[in-house]
Amino acid sequence: MSESDISIALIHYPVLNKKGDVVASAVTNLDIHDIARLGRTYGLKHYYIVTPLEDQKKLVLKIVEHWTKYKGGEVNPDRKEALSIVKIKDQLDDVVKDISAEDKELCIVTTTASAENSAVSFYDMRKKIDTDNKHYLFLFGTAWGLSDEVLKRSDYVLESIEGGGDYNHLSVRSAVSIIIDRLLGDRY
Amino acid sequence: MSESDISIALIHYPVLNKKGDVVASAVTNLDIHDIARLGRTYGLKHYYIVTPLEDQKKLVLKIVEHWTKYKGGEVNPDRKEALSIVKIKDQLDDVVKDISAEDKELCIVTTTASAENSAVSFYDMRKKIDTDNKHYLFLFGTAWGLSDEVLKRSDYVLESIEGGGDYNHLSVRSAVSIIIDRLLGDRY
Repeated sequence: MSESDISIALIHYPVLNKKGDVVASAVTNLDIHDIARLGRTYGLKHYYIVTPLEDQKKLVLKIVEHWTKYKGGEVNPDRKEALSIVKIKDQLDDVVKDISAEDKELCIVTTTASAENSAVSFYDMRKKIDTDNKHYLFLFGTAWGLSDEVLKRSDYVLESIEGGGDYNHLSVRSAVSIIIDRLLGDRY
Repeated sequence: MSESDISIALIHYPVLNKKGDVVASAVTNLDIHDIARLGRTYGLKHYYIVTPLEDQKKLVLKIVEHWTKYKGGEVNPDRKEALSIVKIKDQLDDVVKDISAEDKELCIVTTTASAENSAVSFYDMRKKIDTDNKHYLFLFGTAWGLSDEVLKRSDYVLESIEGGGDYNHLSVRSAVSIIIDRLLGDRY
């Protein structure tokens, strides 16, 4: 077993829109559920949902509390367990602060759908996780991806997923699932 | 490159509900998009959405045509390309008929979240795909999973995904993503 802790942050600001402008995206309900269920299945420590928009934070909190504190959790205890790893934060700095209060060195890894020459391979990242004793935070962008402001916070940029052809437009839900499985799932 | 063709069917009937009764589930909009985008990225041949409910079929057709024939495709050609692999069918028999009209032997593989003694491993399934010249059809269940009636059509049952702990409640979107990546994605 790895000594590293692993967390994810799903960033809704600052991200890019189709034209490359920096925007705040809306939270997608299924992003909360799917990634929390994945995170709980693979033993992630925290799943941060990052948005500075007050109405969006309220909405996410309402959904999370429905399942963790109120009716939902009684009906579906598995969902309660999954959503218990969710934390809502205004911005990346708050995530960094939250993790830094723990006792491990933080390492920020960003993900992108475009091939980067300087990217670290899945193989090497898996080895780091297995051998280091750090808290690895993986950042995922919504909309058209993470802005430069976020990317420049990277300790590492992770290799992109290639499906084998020239088309590469996975949903963030698929991308997070595949990346976490490549880094933490059974190998054969 | 593999000589096999690969398709997926997402089954909405007959599936199980929480109590184990056989039911028809509702189609989830993001299942259409996420799995089509994954399918196009990994070069799948067809993505069948299986439901006998007339209103559900109409709804899926309306969504698919919005992106493949009407406005959506102009705004987002990538989405058009993804949704072009979607076919809507009443039942599994119609999927089998559709594939059997092509020139390869059909092999049906079912997926389940529960560990099965007789399951074929990801490693072995990947080898079969690489070396055989068949059309592999992977069946995924919505709601609480595929009914026995569907499972007994399996040529193979695929090994379940283990996240490493005792919790295993992935969304179907995550499960399909991880399984297709394990079978067709880059290995390292």
